[in-house]
Amino acid sequence: MEIKVLKNVLIKNNAIGNDNRLLFYKHNIFTLNIMSSPGAGKTTLLENSLEYLNNKYKTAVIEGDLYTSRDAERLAPYNIPIVQINTDGGCHLDARMIHGALQSLDLNKINLLVIENVGNLVCPASFDLGEHIKVLVYSITEGADKPKKYASMFSNVDAVLVNKIDLASICNIDLEQVCNEIREINPKGELFKIAANNRNTLHEWLSWLDKKAEEIITQGNKK
Amino acid sequence: MEIKVLKNVLIKNNAIGNDNRLLFYKHNIFTLNIMSSPGAGKTTLLENSLEYLNNKYKTAVIEGDLYTSRDAERLAPYNIPIVQINTDGGCHLDARMIHGALQSLDLNKINLLVIENVGNLVCPASFDLGEHIKVLVYSITEGADKPKKYASMFSNVDAVLVNKIDLASICNIDLEQVCNEIREINPKGELFKIAANNRNTLHEWLSWLDKKAEEIITQGNKK
Repeated sequence: MEIKVLKNVLIKNNAIGNDNRLLFYKHNIFTLNIMSSPGAGKTTLLENSLEYLNNKYKTAVIEGDLYTSRDAERLAPYNIPIVQINTDGGCHLDARMIHGALQSLDLNKINLLVIENVGNLVCPASFDLGEHIKVLVYSITEGADKPKKYASMFSNVDAVLVNKIDLASICNIDLEQVCNEIREINPKGELFKIAANNRNTLHEWLSWLDKKAEEIITQGNKK
Repeated sequence: MEIKVLKNVLIKNNAIGNDNRLLFYKHNIFTLNIMSSPGAGKTTLLENSLEYLNNKYKTAVIEGDLYTSRDAERLAPYNIPIVQINTDGGCHLDARMIHGALQSLDLNKINLLVIENVGNLVCPASFDLGEHIKVLVYSITEGADKPKKYASMFSNVDAVLVNKIDLASICNIDLEQVCNEIREINPKGELFKIAANNRNTLHEWLSWLDKKAEEIITQGNKK
């Protein structure tokens, strides 16, 4: 019964996700959905990626949070359009929320849209927002056993950013073992080792994002 | 529509939660629901609390996990009854799952039941399992801004265990500021600063648990 309800919710969600995808295609916007546990480093990653991204793309951000606008406030200095979605306790962003938020953006003036999802390593994995790629930020402070424990998230993303690698030794984490487990679960996904608060560790991630963005944006331009 | 569905789910859940509560009362079992983000330290807390608890109580554990039995395996050396619930991707434990797990335990032979919930700082807060107290393990590596961002969890528990305090300075966390924000959101809740991997930091937590357990178990004995 509950499973049926969830299936109906997901079918409806995916239909609206497709509408979003068409909108992104029509307006030639590359869209990225960033997910993680609470406090794994999504906003810090954005803070240290946005200067680079703003130089190359017309960027906007949709911020998901249960109640506050704390993350949006942290990104305010970058002078880009930011739309805050408060889920009022809800555990994930869904396609309808994104569809609503898009009404607040001038889609003709952006070509990169970053969606920062609610901090949750379970539910957001099930909800297609119409994005082109899904990215997981995984903090090694959460322990080396998490990839298989949260396999639906780890297996379902285009890239895993293994974050806070500077804390690996103090947390007794064998980084290679963690990476091997991630590769086992998600052999096709990209894997980046980063410390989101250190821009020097973000080059590979940003280059990969560039490649992905350029594929999409160029494809759109051809139309 | 979706909200209506959720309300129905919660009404049904709470009815079964009450059945569980009656069972716990009837069998004089003190029950504890431990929640947190992924990797905040629930299992490590249990590993370092169980020796003490086993000396005082007849303890059993219900382990919630999406797919694996990794946490249950970590607790196997303590030689206590452990029931593993795999939610198959589900984001929380509910009262029905606990009711099912209770069938696998000899309730006449235990007086302390510890439930380790699925790692998720959002959904488990909404589901009454019939437990006597709810406890949140919050790792300071998740950042100082989390209490207000995840207010439904922080405000809804009997105690917050602020964990990994040994990493506070390396993570640039002002521990007092974090504690003040927690107290603001949950003025009645207990607050313990711990490093779950260091038993010397667990005395206050265990004493408090003793007091709570003894209240319940004594009440039961009077009947």
